[in-house]
Amino acid sequence: MTGAFPSSITLDAAAALLATPSRRSDIAPFIVMDVMERAAQIEAAGGHVVHMEVGQPAAPAPLAARAAARRALDEGRVGYTTALGLPGLRARIARHYGEAYGVDLDPARVVVTTGSSAGFLLAFLALFEPGDRVAIANPGYPPYRHILTALGCEPVLIETDAASRWVITPEALLAAHRQAPLKGVLVASPANPTGTMMRPEALAELIATAEAEGIRFISDEIYHGLDYAFPATTAAAISPNATVIHSFSKYFCMTGWRVGWMVMPAPLVRAAERLQQNLMISVPTLSQVAAEAAFDGAAEMEEVKHGYEANRLLLTRELPKAGLPEFLPVDGAFYLYADVSRFTDDSAAFARRLLDEAGVAATPGVDFDPHRGHHYLRFSYAGALGEMALAVERIGAFLRRG
Amino acid sequence: MTGAFPSSITLDAAAALLATPSRRSDIAPFIVMDVMERAAQIEAAGGHVVHMEVGQPAAPAPLAARAAARRALDEGRVGYTTALGLPGLRARIARHYGEAYGVDLDPARVVVTTGSSAGFLLAFLALFEPGDRVAIANPGYPPYRHILTALGCEPVLIETDAASRWVITPEALLAAHRQAPLKGVLVASPANPTGTMMRPEALAELIATAEAEGIRFISDEIYHGLDYAFPATTAAAISPNATVIHSFSKYFCMTGWRVGWMVMPAPLVRAAERLQQNLMISVPTLSQVAAEAAFDGAAEMEEVKHGYEANRLLLTRELPKAGLPEFLPVDGAFYLYADVSRFTDDSAAFARRLLDEAGVAATPGVDFDPHRGHHYLRFSYAGALGEMALAVERIGAFLRRG
Repeated sequence: MTGAFPSSITLDAAAALLATPSRRSDIAPFIVMDVMERAAQIEAAGGHVVHMEVGQPAAPAPLAARAAARRALDEGRVGYTTALGLPGLRARIARHYGEAYGVDLDPARVVVTTGSSAGFLLAFLALFEPGDRVAIANPGYPPYRHILTALGCEPVLIETDAASRWVITPEALLAAHRQAPLKGVLVASPANPTGTMMRPEALAELIATAEAEGIRFISDEIYHGLDYAFPATTAAAISPNATVIHSFSKYFCMTGWRVGWMVMPAPLVRAAERLQQNLMISVPTLSQVAAEAAFDGAAEMEEVKHGYEANRLLLTRELPKAGLPEFLPVDGAFYLYADVSRFTDDSAAFARRLLDEAGVAATPGVDFDPHRGHHYLRFSYAGALGEMALAVERIGAFLRRG
Repeated sequence: MTGAFPSSITLDAAAALLATPSRRSDIAPFIVMDVMERAAQIEAAGGHVVHMEVGQPAAPAPLAARAAARRALDEGRVGYTTALGLPGLRARIARHYGEAYGVDLDPARVVVTTGSSAGFLLAFLALFEPGDRVAIANPGYPPYRHILTALGCEPVLIETDAASRWVITPEALLAAHRQAPLKGVLVASPANPTGTMMRPEALAELIATAEAEGIRFISDEIYHGLDYAFPATTAAAISPNATVIHSFSKYFCMTGWRVGWMVMPAPLVRAAERLQQNLMISVPTLSQVAAEAAFDGAAEMEEVKHGYEANRLLLTRELPKAGLPEFLPVDGAFYLYADVSRFTDDSAAFARRLLDEAGVAATPGVDFDPHRGHHYLRFSYAGALGEMALAVERIGAFLRRG
């Protein structure tokens, strides 16, 4: 990557002063990107890859969503919306809380966001000051810690394990709080990369513990709707002071549309509005229009979900027979987080071999867990059932070859 | 705005602890929002308002852009793109620098962003550490200072005036730098709210002065293409170490699509990529597809621009006759920044009266200039020529009534 400008002397001399990246931008890239690039090379050379590395649905957005976007396109100008989002969409999201959870939610507490990504950014800015300590689970979604760091907050990694069903317990939270006061805690259920969920009582206990200590609670519910082991509980049903972050990306298959929402404590909505006005202006308009219509496509999305359920059944039944018996509770989302420590101490190298020698792309755990990730692989089962069966077969043959 | 949850005791007691907004979210709202709300009330009551308060084109995106979005919708899944943006779009943007400015730009230096808003966020994070001082012009676009503040940087307002043609001069920059070292300077040409531009030699001198002192240069070129007084110069033609921020919102009439780009110094691209991966994942996909096609709609957009030019001629000729003779150089964008100090010391109240009594909506200068904004109004001339003529007539009658 070289600039198109003449003097390399100018570039080199000035770049150190004028174009050195900030310290806070020095965050780890996703190692899965290397997997994806290698997979693309194999396919370009005529090979076949089962894609289990990518965390996005293969299906498109609901027909109703796409039709609504088409209508909006035909109407002419696609202008800014108000910062909090289209009123119809906010009302429809609030209604969803009644339908899905029996929660009576004021639409005024709904903040539409540019995907859950912008939700994290706005929530962290509205809730936390620079220097604030915020607890997150390890393993976990890497942007949690990177966004917190970029905003001057301190992510506090809380180790989770089988004994705690891979979620943050009240005891672990309090232990971290005693070391130095926490200002917030963020949990996800179903979680990425583990696919595990918090039981309703575990979520309620953790929220109560946090709030009793003045620790602000953020619940990442992006994988809600994709729950198989038991129904997911929303933090919005438990406390009016919890911030919920959600998205149309996963259940509604709308990743590239970049549209999501938050349910915020009422006193924080105005702060989120001011931040969104200044930092984003508004959320992509066509995506908001499509999102409102997406709720009409629930039947279609339930079909997609049944596909994930079939994949889940196949993998949990067949992977042990193929030689991969150890994985975390496969409760929800579309992830299976497998322990590969009997085969390797270097999950990145192992993922590369699995791809090169067996044509199965998976994500090394080091993307999600700096400590123990070298012993894990994340498999996404958002693909087709036939591909999953092929993956099991290939993994079995690969492990038998040793 | 009340929560839907039962106990107001719980809410009140806990809210102080759990749901008080952060200090860094305590930024000023846009006062123009009050104007917009009042205008909507008047229209709902059957009144007519000439809208000169909103900084967005009335025209839709180019036909080619909308057709491309429609085709992408028909193709099925709208998935994530790579973090830096679709390769075709990055290449097309790079080609635009050759066509528009004669600059040979490596596509590898182009970073696609979710509007210029996300460009500022990524650029500030990649370039600056918390505590860094960054110079911006006063008056100026309010999100500059609010985004900097939210990210822990210190905006340093440099007063501009008629003597300096309302832009930051090398002398003013050095004066601020001597008070305490600056890490960056951000300029816009054409500028919002003033509509004034920097002459090519003024831009080159300021960049040279900044870079000699190790001050990083950011050029907001969102209004490029909308230049009437003389052609706008891109900082990318002057220094490989300048960061350029641009958008499809204004010239290409794509505000609600939320898509823009940056040209970054080569050594900063990787940092921007890591930040985008973590903070945004990717830019809305349909918008990227539409943006690439938008360049094919330049003839259509030139028509729109000719409309602005006609508006500009009308206003600069007729407003003085109507009683409003004092405004800044009306060089570009679609803004006219008028001095109303002979009528008021309270531009917000004056804007309210102009709206209520004359049906003309304008933005009080206090949104853009905390010091002298009470003496200015910003008029946007992105509307239809007939509306502009009506505005002149109404303003004249209003001022004559006194």
